[in-house]
Amino acid sequence: MNAGNAATHAPDLSDLRTPALVLDLDVLENNLRVMQERTDALGVRLRPHVKTHKCVEIAELQRSRGASGIAVSTLAEARIFAEAGFDDILWAFPLNLSRIGEAAALSRRIELGVTVDSLTAVEALEAAGVSFPVWLEIDCGYGRSGVPHGSGRVVEIARRISRAGRLSLRGCLTHAGHTYHADSPAAIAALAEEERRVMVEVGRALRAAGLEPGVLSLGSTPGMSRVETLEGVDEARPGNYALYDYTQTRLGSCAVSDCAVTVLATVVSARQGSDGAIADCGALALSKDVGPDDPPHYGRLFRDTSGRELSEHRVSSVSQEHGRLSGRFAVGEKVRVLPNHACLTVAHFDRFEVVRGRRVVDRWKIRRARD
Amino acid sequence: MNAGNAATHAPDLSDLRTPALVLDLDVLENNLRVMQERTDALGVRLRPHVKTHKCVEIAELQRSRGASGIAVSTLAEARIFAEAGFDDILWAFPLNLSRIGEAAALSRRIELGVTVDSLTAVEALEAAGVSFPVWLEIDCGYGRSGVPHGSGRVVEIARRISRAGRLSLRGCLTHAGHTYHADSPAAIAALAEEERRVMVEVGRALRAAGLEPGVLSLGSTPGMSRVETLEGVDEARPGNYALYDYTQTRLGSCAVSDCAVTVLATVVSARQGSDGAIADCGALALSKDVGPDDPPHYGRLFRDTSGRELSEHRVSSVSQEHGRLSGRFAVGEKVRVLPNHACLTVAHFDRFEVVRGRRVVDRWKIRRARD
Repeated sequence: MNAGNAATHAPDLSDLRTPALVLDLDVLENNLRVMQERTDALGVRLRPHVKTHKCVEIAELQRSRGASGIAVSTLAEARIFAEAGFDDILWAFPLNLSRIGEAAALSRRIELGVTVDSLTAVEALEAAGVSFPVWLEIDCGYGRSGVPHGSGRVVEIARRISRAGRLSLRGCLTHAGHTYHADSPAAIAALAEEERRVMVEVGRALRAAGLEPGVLSLGSTPGMSRVETLEGVDEARPGNYALYDYTQTRLGSCAVSDCAVTVLATVVSARQGSDGAIADCGALALSKDVGPDDPPHYGRLFRDTSGRELSEHRVSSVSQEHGRLSGRFAVGEKVRVLPNHACLTVAHFDRFEVVRGRRVVDRWKIRRARD
Repeated sequence: MNAGNAATHAPDLSDLRTPALVLDLDVLENNLRVMQERTDALGVRLRPHVKTHKCVEIAELQRSRGASGIAVSTLAEARIFAEAGFDDILWAFPLNLSRIGEAAALSRRIELGVTVDSLTAVEALEAAGVSFPVWLEIDCGYGRSGVPHGSGRVVEIARRISRAGRLSLRGCLTHAGHTYHADSPAAIAALAEEERRVMVEVGRALRAAGLEPGVLSLGSTPGMSRVETLEGVDEARPGNYALYDYTQTRLGSCAVSDCAVTVLATVVSARQGSDGAIADCGALALSKDVGPDDPPHYGRLFRDTSGRELSEHRVSSVSQEHGRLSGRFAVGEKVRVLPNHACLTVAHFDRFEVVRGRRVVDRWKIRRARD
């Protein structure tokens, strides 16, 4: 941490150069506390997915509050967090065969779980001749990756892992990503319960075949906001909950006041006497995620730097660096935008400007890397 | 350049780890040659917009073929290219008042043109007490930023710049971005001709008011593909033409074979006997730009690493790291995706893998930075 330095350069939110990604530390800390308490109460370990924030300082806060390991979505992320001292990392993305050599190198230093949903991937891991803790991905109904639950291939692939000398079945994981498309809190709760039921059933089926399923892991942020019991499973892997975003508010996962990141932008062009202005919050700040609203927009205006609410306004269109704001603004005015999708927005910035209220207290690096 | 090193690590396209951004050098060189010849024939200077590629090596190729200065869209880009030896840079984005101090610092070292469309911005520049070459942005009908052409404010702001002791009116610029929404080559040609006519008229109006308009600058990649004359203007600033992309093919700016960048991805998950597979080309590789097609998709499959055409297939949906491919694929197969929007795709990568045919001949850094 480097609070003194940041405070010297920009003691107040309104002094920041833009575009800037502002992280409200009070909100973040509350989000981390609430989810840790929730998983504790549900009797499961919390393995936060750090693809949302890509930030070592936030992962350290999650760990200090009780999180048990982390999940990542790329090998580059795994390497960065391994270097920062995280030694239980689940690469929760189906194994990329072009990356096995690198995964093996990292696996010699830390517990790096790799995810498979095919015999092809298991065979490639075997051929690498390295000990890997392997996680079997199950599709609980989302229809993206994973072995379809109920398919005989669940047992077939698990058996193959168990018989491979250097591999061990460390766990089974699923992600009910279809909670993001559910149209009511009740529908989200039903999908989250189905996700739990599927994983309990997978555990039973593997044990019936004489196999040890290992850790049963699931979780999405919307699902975790609604699930009533996680009986029979071991671990939850929500990610977005640390920051939340406008989409999560619409899903009912959180309130607007729970959203920890906003993009601070400056109005650079405004027509005299007419609605609409241009600010420096284009596609390379907010992303082109159109969010849940119809008509679509690229972020909701949150407030200005004086604290004035602007919630009736939107970023109505974006080009590469230009964001068009609905409403009347003057050149030089600063606004804060609540992004549709925090994970994609974070990936466009090099750092968080960490604030408590309006006071800038720190800068935390965002570790976006491909290699 | 570092051809030997790259060749040692990955002599062939199919050896690259994925996701990778592949740049076809033969195609790039042809695109640069054709646009330079076109601007030469039209009698204007070419100032390429480097926001598309953010790559010093490509800008150097553009310069060596006759480009005269560059345009950038952020101050971070200006700084990077200034450090690389570019000394005539137009920051072609309306001045961000929170960045004037930094712009002034850079302006002491190179010719850094700053763009304004308001008296507020001119006054802020004056107050900075530094000599700036100033460009006045005109809206030729796109309706994004710029002073509406024909408005009395064009002369008013130009006069204010000319009267400010340390400022000089270096030029007037416009961008017919609405060419991207035109529905036919004829409509694009008409908008490009209107863009030219507007700038000629702006020059006349300023001269009639006793003001020297400086360089008259315009240009978009679709417009440059169709414009018949640029009589009366001085400079064109297309950017995308260096790489092109799927959207440009649909606009008729180029053929698919003119597209210089593809995303190389690996299939990581595939359902047995059914259509659809998951590859490592999600929103953080391709961006969430939905492109011009209906139904929308996130990129067209181009070919596999053996050269087999896959043009009937699409990336039908993306999440953060997952891209869903239409068609049947096997785990471990590699595909090349033609992105909808090259500029946004490039911004997600650290480097280009530079190829001639299938042979990897170099790696060029992509200079994405916020600060």
